[in-house]
Amino acid sequence: MKGKFVTFEGLDGSGKTSVLNRLENYLQQKTSANYLLTREPGGNQIAEQIRRLLLGAGSLKMDARTEALLYAAARRQHLVETVLPALTVGKFVLCDRYVDSSIAYQGAGRQLGETEIARLNEFATDGLQPDLTVYFDVPPTVGLKRINLHRSNQINRLDQESKDFYQRVRKSYLRLATDFPKRFVTIDATAELTEVSRQTLELLQSRLPLLFKA
Amino acid sequence: MKGKFVTFEGLDGSGKTSVLNRLENYLQQKTSANYLLTREPGGNQIAEQIRRLLLGAGSLKMDARTEALLYAAARRQHLVETVLPALTVGKFVLCDRYVDSSIAYQGAGRQLGETEIARLNEFATDGLQPDLTVYFDVPPTVGLKRINLHRSNQINRLDQESKDFYQRVRKSYLRLATDFPKRFVTIDATAELTEVSRQTLELLQSRLPLLFKA
Repeated sequence: MKGKFVTFEGLDGSGKTSVLNRLENYLQQKTSANYLLTREPGGNQIAEQIRRLLLGAGSLKMDARTEALLYAAARRQHLVETVLPALTVGKFVLCDRYVDSSIAYQGAGRQLGETEIARLNEFATDGLQPDLTVYFDVPPTVGLKRINLHRSNQINRLDQESKDFYQRVRKSYLRLATDFPKRFVTIDATAELTEVSRQTLELLQSRLPLLFKA
Repeated sequence: MKGKFVTFEGLDGSGKTSVLNRLENYLQQKTSANYLLTREPGGNQIAEQIRRLLLGAGSLKMDARTEALLYAAARRQHLVETVLPALTVGKFVLCDRYVDSSIAYQGAGRQLGETEIARLNEFATDGLQPDLTVYFDVPPTVGLKRINLHRSNQINRLDQESKDFYQRVRKSYLRLATDFPKRFVTIDATAELTEVSRQTLELLQSRLPLLFKA
């Protein structure tokens, strides 16, 4: 594998996707584009169909394990069709969410067990780990407030169930950051978008200088 | 769990489904129907959508691990929505294919590893094993000939790849039968349909007499 694989993780409302949009603008202007910015399911036909299933009308009846298996299936197909071909030709692959999202959300959030979900994804990815994971850390209250501001004025109540769920997800992310200190870098994402974007850029410039070579 | 869980396994062309159709006719006439005859995905909305994905246009590009994960997801949903509720109210659940199919077809046939696939399905089923598994044994040549007779006169060539694939699947089934002698009963399915049906009925009458109580 010649390229480098970078993943971006964080709670809903952490600002992750906004930062990635800014990063993409920057990279489009400054570099010769030896990179691929992607997110699961990443536009391939099979994984998009799985995504529709996960978000579709029937999903209310969906069992938590079914959901975890479908995320793993979409991840597998995205890896094989999109990520691996780009890495093979030496590209930097910047991916919005990967295995750690499943460990945190399904393993801890939905309480299926982090070890179980890690093992399931070991099968799905054949053990492919990112070279670098940027984790945008926010407390659940901050993330949920941001989501609710964006989505609707009607949803302005942060119910206890959501708070507990996101608290488990965040704790899991923080545990992963501790367990894999070489791979994980945590960024305080409670700051303004401009500041978080600046820190992210600085981090990538110091860890992956070749990404910014024209 | 009050009911009994019975699964039926075998190669394509083993006659399994024909035997199950006859068994259903018999049960409909003779008993008070304290049973459920089902097969994955078993008519629930989510699993049917997964099935369409597995058999659909995009499936040629589908990676073998993606396929295994999707089968496991469909199995999970079928188990939760169909099998477990029936077992809970004390029904006999007769199921056309279950975990052993994935171990034999994906694990051995597609060479993903039988232990890996068993572990994946351990997650999908939360470890729920059948009380009894009826395995219809045929050599691949017999099974493939039957399939080709049914499907089309044009497909009358048994290519070597199919033979090797089905040989691996059959060996895996035979290994499972040896590894789980209490759960597995092997029926020689090279005989005529009437004879195989008779033996199946006899077996169920001796092992599950309550299924035949009026």
